[in-house]
Amino acid sequence: MNNNSGVQIARAALTRLMEPSDMPGLALIRVLGPEDAVAFIRGSDSTHPKVEQEMTEALQDAGTESWSGLADVLGRWRPRLADVSPERDLATLARLGGSLLVPEDPHWPRALDDLELGAPIALWCRGNVRDIPAQERCIAVVGSRDSTSYGANVTGEITHSLVQRHYTVISGGAYGIDANAHRGALSASAEPGVPVTIAVMAGGVDRFYPSGNDELLRTIAERGLVVAEVPPGTNPTRYRFLQRNRLIAALCQVTVVVEARWRSGALNTARHAEMLSRTVGAVPGSVYSANSAGCHRLLREGAAVCVTDAADIAELAGAAGENLRPDQPVEAAIYDGLGTSDLLLLDALPLRTATTLDKLCVVAGLSPATVLSGLGRLESLGLAERVGGGWKRRSQ
Amino acid sequence: MNNNSGVQIARAALTRLMEPSDMPGLALIRVLGPEDAVAFIRGSDSTHPKVEQEMTEALQDAGTESWSGLADVLGRWRPRLADVSPERDLATLARLGGSLLVPEDPHWPRALDDLELGAPIALWCRGNVRDIPAQERCIAVVGSRDSTSYGANVTGEITHSLVQRHYTVISGGAYGIDANAHRGALSASAEPGVPVTIAVMAGGVDRFYPSGNDELLRTIAERGLVVAEVPPGTNPTRYRFLQRNRLIAALCQVTVVVEARWRSGALNTARHAEMLSRTVGAVPGSVYSANSAGCHRLLREGAAVCVTDAADIAELAGAAGENLRPDQPVEAAIYDGLGTSDLLLLDALPLRTATTLDKLCVVAGLSPATVLSGLGRLESLGLAERVGGGWKRRSQ
Repeated sequence: MNNNSGVQIARAALTRLMEPSDMPGLALIRVLGPEDAVAFIRGSDSTHPKVEQEMTEALQDAGTESWSGLADVLGRWRPRLADVSPERDLATLARLGGSLLVPEDPHWPRALDDLELGAPIALWCRGNVRDIPAQERCIAVVGSRDSTSYGANVTGEITHSLVQRHYTVISGGAYGIDANAHRGALSASAEPGVPVTIAVMAGGVDRFYPSGNDELLRTIAERGLVVAEVPPGTNPTRYRFLQRNRLIAALCQVTVVVEARWRSGALNTARHAEMLSRTVGAVPGSVYSANSAGCHRLLREGAAVCVTDAADIAELAGAAGENLRPDQPVEAAIYDGLGTSDLLLLDALPLRTATTLDKLCVVAGLSPATVLSGLGRLESLGLAERVGGGWKRRSQ
Repeated sequence: MNNNSGVQIARAALTRLMEPSDMPGLALIRVLGPEDAVAFIRGSDSTHPKVEQEMTEALQDAGTESWSGLADVLGRWRPRLADVSPERDLATLARLGGSLLVPEDPHWPRALDDLELGAPIALWCRGNVRDIPAQERCIAVVGSRDSTSYGANVTGEITHSLVQRHYTVISGGAYGIDANAHRGALSASAEPGVPVTIAVMAGGVDRFYPSGNDELLRTIAERGLVVAEVPPGTNPTRYRFLQRNRLIAALCQVTVVVEARWRSGALNTARHAEMLSRTVGAVPGSVYSANSAGCHRLLREGAAVCVTDAADIAELAGAAGENLRPDQPVEAAIYDGLGTSDLLLLDALPLRTATTLDKLCVVAGLSPATVLSGLGRLESLGLAERVGGGWKRRSQ
């Protein structure tokens, strides 16, 4: 951990200078590379027409049509230079048993590439596990902080079962569904080296927020990962929470909302997932529960697929033909394969006293020939029996 | 009621001779007209190449490629001739205060035309109300016989509210959701002449089935309608139940499934509605309730829209722009309209002790110019205030 590369040190510094999704900042890094970007910010030049032009092009490629210009954005990074101390931050992380993951690292989760220019500068990772599994193996399970016992139960069952199916659960660090998701995942056993669950934080990984989840987050760091795109010591803010949601959505093949109010942060994660063409699942609940109103909203708007258990979610996560859930075990009704005339005939057959062929024709509304051949079929299926000169239904 | 027309008498007779959706029978009626069809069946001819050819064409138009031929189908109707007594059946209906509705009647519900050749021969209607409202005003509310208290409550609230919104509820006559739907509708007040609720029966309207719903169905006949395509005295059979479901679906703009098991008759009604390009709604419920599994199945398969109350259903029933539910009354968060930089600035503003402009630039990661203009906007929104030489968040 003491052999941090130049790129790691530069990116560590940049996460302190720039807020998440600072698009001009990310454009500068793309144009100059992380080390020269830091050097340029540290320098005294406030103009550089060529760099500014290339940044404009990078921003246009990313869909950002206008920005305030190089001098202005330098004006927002430079006041933070005094706080920059990447070696100190990296040492803090190392002390906590973590490491900085950078895009140049072969272990960098490629799923984040889908964020394009908005991908994080680096990921501050705290935990014993090195790798974030591939997107196909990660499921986001998110929802309200004020979850109900219903939401807690469903979340716990789903995440436990997902880990047993070799998925990694990803969520935030909040109370409620987030905490339930991590607990459910921790209650199951993963394969060695695979994190059971990953908490993506809006603040630094050195300070667990909320403090009531301190022990839980500590356990996650032992058996999973706690990650953030902001450096140690950073407070979580509303803006950082919203940005954090895009990381959860990007890392996962499926984002499942278990409980959410009509207006809920979890819906923001779902919308990020939708924009990234990931799949969104929503767990239904009582129409009387305000905590399910957001899920029902997603379902109603067609923004989410209805999921009721881990099997449903695994099916959504799997490629076509993979993970398909077996058909619900139902007793196939014996009359399912019958044609219309045989069904009419079966309905017409008395349960107790046998009846005649003529009577059957009248009751069933079928011709004698149809009744005769139908009785043969029903008899062979064990549905009809001949008694004396007549016919009755055979009791099952 | 004693002045039954020839067409009424003929169609009354035909409902006794032919089972619901007897496609060759319906083709014969289309080719010859109801009166001549009865005469032909009563006659002794078993062949008639021209009629047979035209029936074949009518069946082909309806998508039926092969049938057993005129002689065979005559063989299934003729044994029933002995039971045919349309005047008696019509008198029975008149005694019960009903009337026979036929396609030649201007009051015939045009929604049934969507069943094409499979439309019913006639409708035996029992009730004081003459008209079945137009499809746009009818909502089917169906579900399991063994409903839970949750299903009963949701059904009762939805149907009560639908009637108050001037919709007519349509359902079967079974225990559970069907009965709850009728009770909820009956608990509300409709406009004069409009049936609050309509029960579509699989058997004759003179015999209420199940008998435990006898009183309920009697009340429906007083304030709504009890209808069937089969004549008085007819038993409900499995085949007739399945056919009955197509009538419920065809009469309604929206079919709502409140509770249904994974395998439920209500899903059959939903599928009929889907085939008729009607809209299907499903009410979500607990993932632990087997009685909601069928609803979740419909949602998951994309066969139904998630509906949680009468407003959702009215919106589905209404034409675009009509009946649109008002936005959920939520307190719009004051920071909803803020841009990224103002959001960052708001997050950076201390709640208690005012801070300086320079400090704000560092904390927010914004340039002095951006902070200054942002403070102006936040101040005008009542979100920031100047205290001494510094700035703090304004408490709400």
